[in-house]
Amino acid sequence: MAEIVCLDIGGSKMLGGILSEAGAVLATRREPLSSRDPRDVAHQAAALVRALLDQTGVSPRGIGCAIPGPLDRRTGTIVHSPNLGWRNIPFAAILSQACRLPVALDDDARCAAIGEWWRGKRQHAECILFVVVGTGIGGALILHGRPIYGATDNAGEIGHTVVLIDGPRCSCGKRGCLEAAASGWALAEAGRKSARSGNAPELLTLAGGSADAVGADHVLRAARCGSPAAQGILENAGAMLGLGIANAVTLLNPQLVIIGGGVGLAAFDVVLPSIQRALRCHALAPAAQAVTIAPSSLGEHAGLIGACWVFLRAHPE
Amino acid sequence: MAEIVCLDIGGSKMLGGILSEAGAVLATRREPLSSRDPRDVAHQAAALVRALLDQTGVSPRGIGCAIPGPLDRRTGTIVHSPNLGWRNIPFAAILSQACRLPVALDDDARCAAIGEWWRGKRQHAECILFVVVGTGIGGALILHGRPIYGATDNAGEIGHTVVLIDGPRCSCGKRGCLEAAASGWALAEAGRKSARSGNAPELLTLAGGSADAVGADHVLRAARCGSPAAQGILENAGAMLGLGIANAVTLLNPQLVIIGGGVGLAAFDVVLPSIQRALRCHALAPAAQAVTIAPSSLGEHAGLIGACWVFLRAHPE
Repeated sequence: MAEIVCLDIGGSKMLGGILSEAGAVLATRREPLSSRDPRDVAHQAAALVRALLDQTGVSPRGIGCAIPGPLDRRTGTIVHSPNLGWRNIPFAAILSQACRLPVALDDDARCAAIGEWWRGKRQHAECILFVVVGTGIGGALILHGRPIYGATDNAGEIGHTVVLIDGPRCSCGKRGCLEAAASGWALAEAGRKSARSGNAPELLTLAGGSADAVGADHVLRAARCGSPAAQGILENAGAMLGLGIANAVTLLNPQLVIIGGGVGLAAFDVVLPSIQRALRCHALAPAAQAVTIAPSSLGEHAGLIGACWVFLRAHPE
Repeated sequence: MAEIVCLDIGGSKMLGGILSEAGAVLATRREPLSSRDPRDVAHQAAALVRALLDQTGVSPRGIGCAIPGPLDRRTGTIVHSPNLGWRNIPFAAILSQACRLPVALDDDARCAAIGEWWRGKRQHAECILFVVVGTGIGGALILHGRPIYGATDNAGEIGHTVVLIDGPRCSCGKRGCLEAAASGWALAEAGRKSARSGNAPELLTLAGGSADAVGADHVLRAARCGSPAAQGILENAGAMLGLGIANAVTLLNPQLVIIGGGVGLAAFDVVLPSIQRALRCHALAPAAQAVTIAPSSLGEHAGLIGACWVFLRAHPE
């Protein structure tokens, strides 16, 4: 029985942890990402891993790493990560060399979904749709107790399903994607527009008087303070998020939809009624009746725990 | 090595076959359904099975049956089949008693998808979205070489994903479903409307001069004869079918989308360009690039072959 070192690397942070083979988190360390150069990231990770091992005195079997994709699991290559600005980086090999340990890596949203399924509050659920609402919107699928990768490891991209034909332009270049209607950046954009128009004085005040400074967090705080403009923005985002989820529920018939991500967790109670309304209105009744909508139960540990499972599956011993 | 008797029961027909354990079709018989009463259907099936066994002289291991759902595979109960007008009918038990053979049953769209995956032209594909465009629109999913059932056996219902918020009313009671835009009944409805308005003289002629008599087949024939109105109807239906498929492709990243069903196969060449345009316009690029759209390769044998696999999996011996 040996431990696994797990990493969750994002566009701006690096979280490291020591986990037992059963997925229990024994220790963690969190740092801001100091550079996005792949070798710098690997060296920062190696230092973080050393610090965790010194602190705990364990001799780990290897490293499981959650990282923004799309990536090719088999070769451990980041194919194209907009969050990190990487293209075709063989990061598993680079990280393995820097840490002198075997490495298995997988997409961060998929790792978080696997973590929730393996060690979350609702471990009985075998069919799960995981939706990550952060700056963008990502997602992952667990069906019949197996992570779904798709033909080229790109499955789960609910953020880029179209909810509104000819709708607003998305970060991916298409129009009308769920991400363009309900992500952190879309909320911020709608908030700035509203603040500029003079319709949202509360929002402008919360952002220190500058419409350009309005972020998704300001929209959420203004809505909680009773701003009708901010409430309208969140209601619209919730309705679109609900429509995107309803279509996935009709197609996949999951027991459980888990909402994660910074924006999703912060806004969960505010948007839940809109999501439930959309499910009743837009999802096929037998599928809508079978599903529960819940916030992520493992918080920022979900990715580490999923990365642990990914390592154990790749190196079963 | 013994054979399997397979049945594919629809709202108006019953197809029976003798299949080898490898899924080869050795003999078939097709009849119109003479009654929709569950016991009558079971007795008609028993007579069909006897005729097939007399004809071929085989001693079968049992019966695999494809039948319209939703159904509960474990108990062999048809939960609610709008096509047959059944609710909570324990049909596996009724059929087993009538034929004195063990029975395994599954949803007809899922059986057809399994048939294509197991013995179709593209057996290498492990991730398949199967879309059945008939009077209604059904579907089924094979992901990583396993049929996807969902939490309550309702997965695959792409026909009831919403492609147009507040769009036309669907047979399920919701608005804007893919089925309400691109199914056989939706084509017929659009054709009748067009014929009544006087905009589609070719369509009216093909239907014998009566707008009320216009069906989906008339719309397709009028389009092939150059009727602009009929071509417009099919173009719109193809665009909506393409949007529904694009969203499923973005979410699931399949290698293969198979179009089946009477209307889907008859109109395949006409709607394929619209579907491909929609994929380029609405699906996430890496997923769109990885997918092939193809017509069903097994035709009406697909359901029988899938039912054979379903029986063998339920009774592995």
